[in-house]
Amino acid sequence: MTIRALVWNEFIHEQENDIVRGIYPTGIHQAIAQALTEEDGIVAETATLQEPEHGLTQERLDKTDVLIWWGHKAHGAVDDAVVDRVQQRVAEGMGLIVLHSGHFSKIFRRLMGTPCSLRWREAGERARLWVINRNHPIARGVDTAIELQHSEMYGEPFLVPEPMETVFITWYEGGEVFRSGLTYQRGAGRIFYFEPGHETYPIFHNADIRRVLRNAVRWAYNPAEPWKDVSEAPNRPYDQAREKLTPKGPALHKYGEAGYR
Amino acid sequence: MTIRALVWNEFIHEQENDIVRGIYPTGIHQAIAQALTEEDGIVAETATLQEPEHGLTQERLDKTDVLIWWGHKAHGAVDDAVVDRVQQRVAEGMGLIVLHSGHFSKIFRRLMGTPCSLRWREAGERARLWVINRNHPIARGVDTAIELQHSEMYGEPFLVPEPMETVFITWYEGGEVFRSGLTYQRGAGRIFYFEPGHETYPIFHNADIRRVLRNAVRWAYNPAEPWKDVSEAPNRPYDQAREKLTPKGPALHKYGEAGYR
Amino acid sequence: MTIRALVWNEFIHEQENDIVRGIYPTGIHQAIAQALTEEDGIVAETATLQEPEHGLTQERLDKTDVLIWWGHKAHGAVDDAVVDRVQQRVAEGMGLIVLHSGHFSKIFRRLMGTPCSLRWREAGERARLWVINRNHPIARGVDTAIELQHSEMYGEPFLVPEPMETVFITWYEGGEVFRSGLTYQRGAGRIFYFEPGHETYPIFHNADIRRVLRNAVRWAYNPAEPWKDVSEAPNRPYDQAREKLTPKGPALHKYGEAGYR
Amino acid sequence: MTIRALVWNEFIHEQENDIVRGIYPTGIHQAIAQALTEEDGIVAETATLQEPEHGLTQERLDKTDVLIWWGHKAHGAVDDAVVDRVQQRVAEGMGLIVLHSGHFSKIFRRLMGTPCSLRWREAGERARLWVINRNHPIARGVDTAIELQHSEMYGEPFLVPEPMETVFITWYEGGEVFRSGLTYQRGAGRIFYFEPGHETYPIFHNADIRRVLRNAVRWAYNPAEPWKDVSEAPNRPYDQAREKLTPKGPALHKYGEAGYR
Repeated sequence: MTIRALVWNEFIHEQENDIVRGIYPTGIHQAIAQALTEEDGIVAETATLQEPEHGLTQERLDKTDVLIWWGHKAHGAVDDAVVDRVQQRVAEGMGLIVLHSGHFSKIFRRLMGTPCSLRWREAGERARLWVINRNHPIARGVDTAIELQHSEMYGEPFLVPEPMETVFITWYEGGEVFRSGLTYQRGAGRIFYFEPGHETYPIFHNADIRRVLRNAVRWAYNPAEPWKDVSEAPNRPYDQAREKLTPKGPALHKYGEAGYR
Repeated sequence: MTIRALVWNEFIHEQENDIVRGIYPTGIHQAIAQALTEEDGIVAETATLQEPEHGLTQERLDKTDVLIWWGHKAHGAVDDAVVDRVQQRVAEGMGLIVLHSGHFSKIFRRLMGTPCSLRWREAGERARLWVINRNHPIARGVDTAIELQHSEMYGEPFLVPEPMETVFITWYEGGEVFRSGLTYQRGAGRIFYFEPGHETYPIFHNADIRRVLRNAVRWAYNPAEPWKDVSEAPNRPYDQAREKLTPKGPALHKYGEAGYR
Repeated sequence: MTIRALVWNEFIHEQENDIVRGIYPTGIHQAIAQALTEEDGIVAETATLQEPEHGLTQERLDKTDVLIWWGHKAHGAVDDAVVDRVQQRVAEGMGLIVLHSGHFSKIFRRLMGTPCSLRWREAGERARLWVINRNHPIARGVDTAIELQHSEMYGEPFLVPEPMETVFITWYEGGEVFRSGLTYQRGAGRIFYFEPGHETYPIFHNADIRRVLRNAVRWAYNPAEPWKDVSEAPNRPYDQAREKLTPKGPALHKYGEAGYR
Repeated sequence: MTIRALVWNEFIHEQENDIVRGIYPTGIHQAIAQALTEEDGIVAETATLQEPEHGLTQERLDKTDVLIWWGHKAHGAVDDAVVDRVQQRVAEGMGLIVLHSGHFSKIFRRLMGTPCSLRWREAGERARLWVINRNHPIARGVDTAIELQHSEMYGEPFLVPEPMETVFITWYEGGEVFRSGLTYQRGAGRIFYFEPGHETYPIFHNADIRRVLRNAVRWAYNPAEPWKDVSEAPNRPYDQAREKLTPKGPALHKYGEAGYR
């Protein structure tokens, strides 16, 4: 059983900004893909905004077990049809890991149903991610806390639904806190939001962060067959009911008719 | 303190179908508005799909504490800009009660982030809504269960996120079950999904159903000032940090600059 | 509608320690009771460990809408029979607010089912409670954050179940974080855990803390009739079933017999 | 990686009642242990009430990854010290699966913190367990629903906390519903409550039920090292703080002192 991960990156800062390119010469997606494959059990491909259909064709997504998402300045450039496709695949069972500024991506806001807003500051301050449940699969191998010497501050309130589990909470030098590791279940798919990942610091070269990414991919992986018709609302006529049933009363629909959408 | 409710109805079946018109001569919205005002404390207005902006202008929504939503065959006809507006108002603190076939409305699917699909059958069968927590404010005054002699069957799986609270679960004559009363918190707003309400049966004339609607409006009402900037992600520069902070390391943004969206 | 609050305190430090007595000359319970009654709508009585049955007789609890609990060094001295009684009343619908070191009280550990352990440090450090949902009833009237100049540090991991809602998260000068305001529903009763309250600092004289206590009492209040038989598991024999039912197959119990416990 | 399961049974009905003995000649525990080992990956031992320390010594529990619990008429005979031990092991990461009448066991009530009460009827009626999330690991390989020709009715309200996930809901011939498969996380341990299992029907010989039991054991298994000190509340003195800290203000405890419990 090898998990097929796909790392998506908007891949703009690395081409426009010298600092970011210095840290991630081949792009954040390549650094993350490398992190995922440092141990056995995960294969990782990459896709970027610039590719046709942003590299997220139906065929590609159908072969993806877990999608990782990094985006920042071009959320609006992501095609709605592609977002629809990703959302459907999550409902079918594909895992999704949303990183850092991906909090404002179309796909994350779609799946949360909330503004996904927060407070922020780019001052290179110290951050410390406390592990809330050290035996959670996503925290495996991580010590009591992850220390980051430089980080962008993301502060509460973070406008997301109450999570299934709070895995990390971050302390910031400037005085804020943030729920930095949150899990969600949406349809058959598992979602993990992970806050670290500002592009001007070498976050994705940090060994603990890389370990969390691998753990998260394993956690989000659902080995079940994709639930392809998860969005269908089938009519179950009276003669297919599991209990004997005689129709009564008025009806709007004809026998066996499809419903409205 | 009077709660300002607004009952929205797509108002099509009542104009096209004799059975439905027979039950709700002035529309489902009028029956619900009447139910809400049977006791003191709630004033109710109505709005329908056919009105300009579907009767849901910004000004109207700003004066609404709790919005009730009934739609079925014309979900696609609801303008996306109006859905955006409603979603923002929920995040700000407006309550939302989604009824029956509203499970497939744009606004509900947006707020849930899931397909909101289910199984259904229109055979006029018996249904019984069991009260899970009889001391929940929404169940106030309701006995152990609500009996419906005729109902449309809505069956599990119901593709919604795990709720904050399960308030009702329905038993159907044909052998199915359904989580028929579910609460959610999204931003500052409370949401209640309530399954009963098929248009060819006089569901909204049932005293228990009417009581639940009133209870739900009271429960969903948030007396706090609307959180108008709930969707903003403000920059909190280093010199506004609550702890003394000296910027360090490289930065992408200039001092005080707005973030990307 | 006036809410009947009862403030329970083990009342030991105030009698043994000069510093604590200096801050709370008549006991922490009196300071809290005073805070609760600063606005209309709440009446507050007090009870302490030293009274017969710790002041928590059945009669007293039956007249209590919301119980507030402060304990620290004498958790073990609280009689199990009294704890049973309080637990039953919470299931029936009495609200419960557990403060600070009450995390290790018998009643809180009973209701959570987990160790309720945490990390701590008594160094008088600065603490800042960030409001996660500013429109939550418990946060009403509180600004973005509550600043405490001196506090005991309580650090994660905090071994409690995932809450219904995270209302506050605290930042500590020494580098830790803590989920400091958490809500739970247990049976018909609402529970709020609130972290501040170390006895050597004047926490309960702070206006914001006092406001949160009043808010929490209002939030935890359930106006429904107490669910007196909430712990019963009644037999519903076949001839009382809502659907016609013919018994079949072997049975262990005689008709109408009570179940085992 | 082989999961070490331990099946606990009070083992009384099988010795006292001919019907039950006829179905489970060597005890319910043996039938379950056999079910668990029908596929590779799980080894199963058994323990019963009658053994010294009910077969649940510290040493035994320390070697157990997942404990399965069946009890009915002798909940009160289970020693509190053994219950303490099991509860601590769950907090450390041991999985726990509670079956049927185990809803009233000491260990389940302890972990839930609620009355765990329900309604019941022994009339051999038909029951149907609907799968809520067919891609949940616990539902793997199960069709849309599990049909039971004879079952004891367990009806709502079921007085447990809102679960992490609702995996099954049961429909009963007599008109009731029940949340029959519920997951919880408590400390590092995962808990699954599964309703089927009345002793006078051959429930544990049903292939679907046996599959769910195996699935549940795999789901509840936490491969992480046991969190042995999960219940400790260590003092973290100022000079061990991760941020430089100067103590200030009055203190109750001496430097490095242990806290109260």
